[in-house]
Amino acid sequence: MFIGAQVSLYPMVSDFVRVIFSGLEALAPYRDRLRIETDDISTLMVGAPEPLFDGLRDFFARAAVEPGETLETPAHVTMHVTLSRGCPGEPDDPSCRCDVLATTQDTPLAERQQQALEAVRNAPQTGVEIDVQFSLYVMGQDRHMDEIYGCIDFLRDSGTFLKSKNFSTRLRGDAGAVFETLRQAFLRFGPAEGHVTIDMTASANSPSPR
Amino acid sequence: MFIGAQVSLYPMVSDFVRVIFSGLEALAPYRDRLRIETDDISTLMVGAPEPLFDGLRDFFARAAVEPGETLETPAHVTMHVTLSRGCPGEPDDPSCRCDVLATTQDTPLAERQQQALEAVRNAPQTGVEIDVQFSLYVMGQDRHMDEIYGCIDFLRDSGTFLKSKNFSTRLRGDAGAVFETLRQAFLRFGPAEGHVTIDMTASANSPSPR
Repeated sequence: MFIGAQVSLYPMVSDFVRVIFSGLEALAPYRDRLRIETDDISTLMVGAPEPLFDGLRDFFARAAVEPGETLETPAHVTMHVTLSRGCPGEPDDPSCRCDVLATTQDTPLAERQQQALEAVRNAPQTGVEIDVQFSLYVMGQDRHMDEIYGCIDFLRDSGTFLKSKNFSTRLRGDAGAVFETLRQAFLRFGPAEGHVTIDMTASANSPSPR
Repeated sequence: MFIGAQVSLYPMVSDFVRVIFSGLEALAPYRDRLRIETDDISTLMVGAPEPLFDGLRDFFARAAVEPGETLETPAHVTMHVTLSRGCPGEPDDPSCRCDVLATTQDTPLAERQQQALEAVRNAPQTGVEIDVQFSLYVMGQDRHMDEIYGCIDFLRDSGTFLKSKNFSTRLRGDAGAVFETLRQAFLRFGPAEGHVTIDMTASANSPSPR
């Protein structure tokens, strides 16, 4: 199994590089458990879902409270993440081992939905309110929409659900609960050994009316 | 068939709203053929692939040359696009009718690759150099990687291919050729009536070493 993400942070402020570096400091506690490589478009993060989603949460939450250049309040900041597990084109990587995933295959959908809800209820509070828009893709099987609709049912009950949109779902809430919701969607839906991806955008401090 | 995109533009400059509005002016010629709806996270664009990809190209190319606030050169700007065709959860929409797509089902892979290459050769020049990173997802069939590998072969010959990365492919070149490459990847690979999506990021004027 190979699990990872391509991650890009976009602070809408002229000294955006400073905000990105501030966010990266929040990844320090995870660097021993994640492989992290950066180029001019994105940062690759490879590892198990526990440090991976915790790292994404802390990275974004830190950037979202970083004061802007000439502003008294933090800048509008967004983050795009392409998440993937089980891509047939990627090598097996022992660091991506995940016990939750290993048990998914044999667990009925209703039970997985309950486990996902419990995980979100137990998520830590960060004190940072964020918006998320994401799409879950399940590949390599005929009835891929069954798992997607099962996931959407979980999302509606998660406490972080905002609304459905074309091609995607909107979440809103504390970064702790929202990133736990994303981790559960990624892990508990779609076959355990299958190819599952998420296309996800997080946003904080938008000047647009909510 | 329902075809569309969720689009977000991210100018890394404090007066980012001005750059976004400048980019939106470039969409004017397409508004009679695209349904366009904006909220605080993204802009939905629904319509056939011809106006859809032309509109995305012109929107991003315009934003990429817009001078920055206190800078003499244009700001670093990125755009994230979630593209989708044939999602079983979306209604049929006559405005999305696409003749290229209708013929795909019966055309062998090698012939589709040649048609895609010819389209990229005939793409207009915009004079705007851009970088793109994207992933193509083909759902609802067992052998989804065959179509993805077939698409990657086309990309390698397209003239816009830069490199492969984990989970994604990098393109670089004139915005005209790059967006034509994306349109061909979206239309000519995966079943004509199937559920195909693209997770795509465009970047211009990055201060990072290329």
